[in-house]
Amino acid sequence: MSTDKFRDCIEACIRCAHACEHCAQSCLRESDVTPMAACIQTDRDCAEACWMAAAFMSRGSLFIEEVCDVCAKICDACAAECEKHEMDHCQKCAEACRRCAHECRTMSGVHA
Amino acid sequence: MSTDKFRDCIEACIRCAHACEHCAQSCLRESDVTPMAACIQTDRDCAEACWMAAAFMSRGSLFIEEVCDVCAKICDACAAECEKHEMDHCQKCAEACRRCAHECRTMSGVHA
Amino acid sequence: MSTDKFRDCIEACIRCAHACEHCAQSCLRESDVTPMAACIQTDRDCAEACWMAAAFMSRGSLFIEEVCDVCAKICDACAAECEKHEMDHCQKCAEACRRCAHECRTMSGVHA
Amino acid sequence: MSTDKFRDCIEACIRCAHACEHCAQSCLRESDVTPMAACIQTDRDCAEACWMAAAFMSRGSLFIEEVCDVCAKICDACAAECEKHEMDHCQKCAEACRRCAHECRTMSGVHA
Repeated sequence: MSTDKFRDCIEACIRCAHACEHCAQSCLRESDVTPMAACIQTDRDCAEACWMAAAFMSRGSLFIEEVCDVCAKICDACAAECEKHEMDHCQKCAEACRRCAHECRTMSGVHA
Repeated sequence: MSTDKFRDCIEACIRCAHACEHCAQSCLRESDVTPMAACIQTDRDCAEACWMAAAFMSRGSLFIEEVCDVCAKICDACAAECEKHEMDHCQKCAEACRRCAHECRTMSGVHA
Repeated sequence: MSTDKFRDCIEACIRCAHACEHCAQSCLRESDVTPMAACIQTDRDCAEACWMAAAFMSRGSLFIEEVCDVCAKICDACAAECEKHEMDHCQKCAEACRRCAHECRTMSGVHA
Repeated sequence: MSTDKFRDCIEACIRCAHACEHCAQSCLRESDVTPMAACIQTDRDCAEACWMAAAFMSRGSLFIEEVCDVCAKICDACAAECEKHEMDHCQKCAEACRRCAHECRTMSGVHA
């Protein structure tokens, strides 16, 4: 993967996107899906934001700061939701979201 | 929107993507989400395939035939799943999926 | 398409995404592509932001305000770049970007 | 990242998407962009197909076989185009595409 200044953040975004996709799918396989609805919904948004941020950084876009800022906000919300649930997939997803939010905040402040 | 040969298929893909996003969200708001799990999952895949097919056609990609072929298959599966449920959002989504599958099949045969 | 409060903005985003995809492709077919490099690059980012905003609105995401705010900024930049070029595809893309930026700003202020 | 049967293919897709995004951007910064037009165009399609395949595998979609099959075809075409150019970014992208096509073919045959 890239060795440049975006490397850590791209990796955090990809891990978070992956964790969110996996968490949403795992939530849908729980015996009672109803309490997981908010988690599934936030996972979806967070995955999409993270894949997009990874793509913008991969091509050195001029809008990395803006995209990473939004991504950090959605990661925060997804982490807060996932932390409410004790399942392993939720706990791991929350962790990936917290890490990604941190990396995205660092990135969005690069030109600040 | 475009006036070219892709117009009908782009429109069908966008309507289908929209219907799938809306259906997934509506399923997540049902009082019992558990029976909707397969529908939410297929809606997600179908929405993503349809947005992607619309993008490929919008730029006149060389891979429209291949992408529309996959999109048609996912639309078929999503229609079949949605048709199992009597909710209005599922019935409308199924209709959009059937229409999109038809348009995508026409498109994927263009160079055949 | 949806008849709700997001309708106009979703439509503007989809038209803008389509115009950006088409503009990028048309730039790549110009006899001299070099002066179009910035336009191709910005079209790419703008298309992706617009498709994403349309998807977030289609599913009534909780992050529409944030995503539309970023989308508006990228649309502004894309319009400014496209306006530098006299080709029809650039002029039409600039127009779609200005309209989309306006709709996204209205949307991003909805909960403000 | 995931430790399951999709791990190698997800990784190959992400590396390929990253290489394609980077290659397109680097092509746009060449002193003469015109000869790189086909490469920029194919990079775009290949990146999008690879991000999508990575997302489908991350959530264990039912359509991994179909999506990976298309992805492999687009990777082949992108590799063939990139191999025509001696720049380092093109050569590295071609390599990532060949590897990704191979992994996607393995994946698309999993249920065959």
